[in-house]
Amino acid sequence: MAELALIAAIRELLPPAAPRTVRGPGDDAAVVRARPFAVTSVDTLVENVHFRRATHSAADIGHKAMAAALSDLAAMGAEPGEVYMSLALPGDMADAEALTLAGAAAGLARAHDMTLAGGDVVAAATLVVGVTVVGWAESEDQLAGRDGARPGHVVGVTGALGASGAGLALLERGDHSDGVLQRAHRRPEPRLRLGRALAGAGVSAMIDVSDGLATDAGHLARSSGVRVNVQLDAVPVAEGVVGVAHGAGVDPSRFAATAGEDYELLFCIDPQGWQGAAEAAVGTGTVVTRLGVVDAGDGCALIGPSGLPVTDARGYEHG
Amino acid sequence: MAELALIAAIRELLPPAAPRTVRGPGDDAAVVRARPFAVTSVDTLVENVHFRRATHSAADIGHKAMAAALSDLAAMGAEPGEVYMSLALPGDMADAEALTLAGAAAGLARAHDMTLAGGDVVAAATLVVGVTVVGWAESEDQLAGRDGARPGHVVGVTGALGASGAGLALLERGDHSDGVLQRAHRRPEPRLRLGRALAGAGVSAMIDVSDGLATDAGHLARSSGVRVNVQLDAVPVAEGVVGVAHGAGVDPSRFAATAGEDYELLFCIDPQGWQGAAEAAVGTGTVVTRLGVVDAGDGCALIGPSGLPVTDARGYEHG
Repeated sequence: MAELALIAAIRELLPPAAPRTVRGPGDDAAVVRARPFAVTSVDTLVENVHFRRATHSAADIGHKAMAAALSDLAAMGAEPGEVYMSLALPGDMADAEALTLAGAAAGLARAHDMTLAGGDVVAAATLVVGVTVVGWAESEDQLAGRDGARPGHVVGVTGALGASGAGLALLERGDHSDGVLQRAHRRPEPRLRLGRALAGAGVSAMIDVSDGLATDAGHLARSSGVRVNVQLDAVPVAEGVVGVAHGAGVDPSRFAATAGEDYELLFCIDPQGWQGAAEAAVGTGTVVTRLGVVDAGDGCALIGPSGLPVTDARGYEHG
Repeated sequence: MAELALIAAIRELLPPAAPRTVRGPGDDAAVVRARPFAVTSVDTLVENVHFRRATHSAADIGHKAMAAALSDLAAMGAEPGEVYMSLALPGDMADAEALTLAGAAAGLARAHDMTLAGGDVVAAATLVVGVTVVGWAESEDQLAGRDGARPGHVVGVTGALGASGAGLALLERGDHSDGVLQRAHRRPEPRLRLGRALAGAGVSAMIDVSDGLATDAGHLARSSGVRVNVQLDAVPVAEGVVGVAHGAGVDPSRFAATAGEDYELLFCIDPQGWQGAAEAAVGTGTVVTRLGVVDAGDGCALIGPSGLPVTDARGYEHG
């Protein structure tokens, strides 16, 4: 199928354009009725770097690329808007597969009230999926950045961690079954409603856990100019992770704190706001766990059972 | 250099964020103060598909990727906004080269009053450059789509055509010198001011000439539900193209009408508006040429000197 035919086929997957969309796919650019603040992120997934076609179906890849991009909007607390998808397709990928990929991505977007408003299909030697997401906000203070954490604030995380990393470990050792852990790795769920709830509850800083809790806490700490302390034994470990971690000879809490792609949300908040944030999260069906406190200093410190840091911001191992 | 270090180095290339930018690179997403209508397009350039590193320097590639994306905003008549750049970098590309690429892209964006507000750097087997551009408009009728051409409207094009195609022909036959034609291919200039001037002058439809005049006129015709007639001998042929076309045994007008990547603007307008559009274009330093008229029917017809079509919308050759 030529690129134009594939684009036409992808368009047929789409529901009628949202009323916000003045011009959708098919013009030189999409035209969308704006709200006061645009929240925009781009995310690119590359074959054999971020996924393997041996372990991820076309639908997994489309879902995952969209989830990773949407997760950035979740971390800002943005309201739904538009997605734009760029597909660089290798010659050995059948058109039906490309359509399945696009359909899975569009389906996840739609499930989060996002509209697929445009995109691009080109040829390439390896599969590259680029997703641009645009969310909206009525006011600046409706959004959460990474830079507002202050000494004395409480550190929290949503849900449980490590499932995606454990799933990846299983896939890499050849267990390609559709277990809960593999599915967590192949089809992560972005936390858009949860992110809006937490931003609305007044978190001072928020980031999505894509690179791993310790690394992402380090990013947040650096942006805020503070030190984020995480009690290792407080880290919520997802079901099934303990066995995989033990099998790999790693402490499960450490595994959960360093594995990536869970797409949970890490946040800081003034202690007085904690209860409200916890209730807001429960209102969207998710629990939050208190991990530690923010203090002066820099980076993320994982604190072991002895009360001493086991890893500091520079990644040196102490333990 | 790790991806984060490269991102930091790219950020240092950037001027201070525009006042419109509330949060720039370094958060989960950029936050921008919006205007009433957002105009968004994504464009992806792939190594060995859209360019070769043997014939395009890193700066050429960055420039070209940005030009191709900005050209879509030009074709809408949008006002400047933000760009987001996704770089998938192969292992054999030196960090200095990647920075040069990003710097050239950012430089072209800045020259058109666009702000680089975010992006993504990942590893890949081949170089893939994705650019998302966002322009703005105060009102819908300030923008031009592809769908407003009506029978009786005049067809026009800006500047002259064929230089990029002739440059590509020279590069492909091994002439890698920095001639005017090669430069037209390596460093195309998007027509943003010109596009705004034409949209302001009331064009009924507009598209940028990226795939070639005949093909792009066909896209416009299909969107508008009309037939676009282009007099082949009226096509403005860029300087230097005649020699290259003759060398290739092709009629120069035909060459100019079918070569791509000139990034000039093709437009239709009510005959009463022609003079105003021509003057608006001249006000930005560019002439426009009348190519033919719109009538009922479909597709683009290239009309030969005999007055008979030499190519119709389905691409069949008659001549």
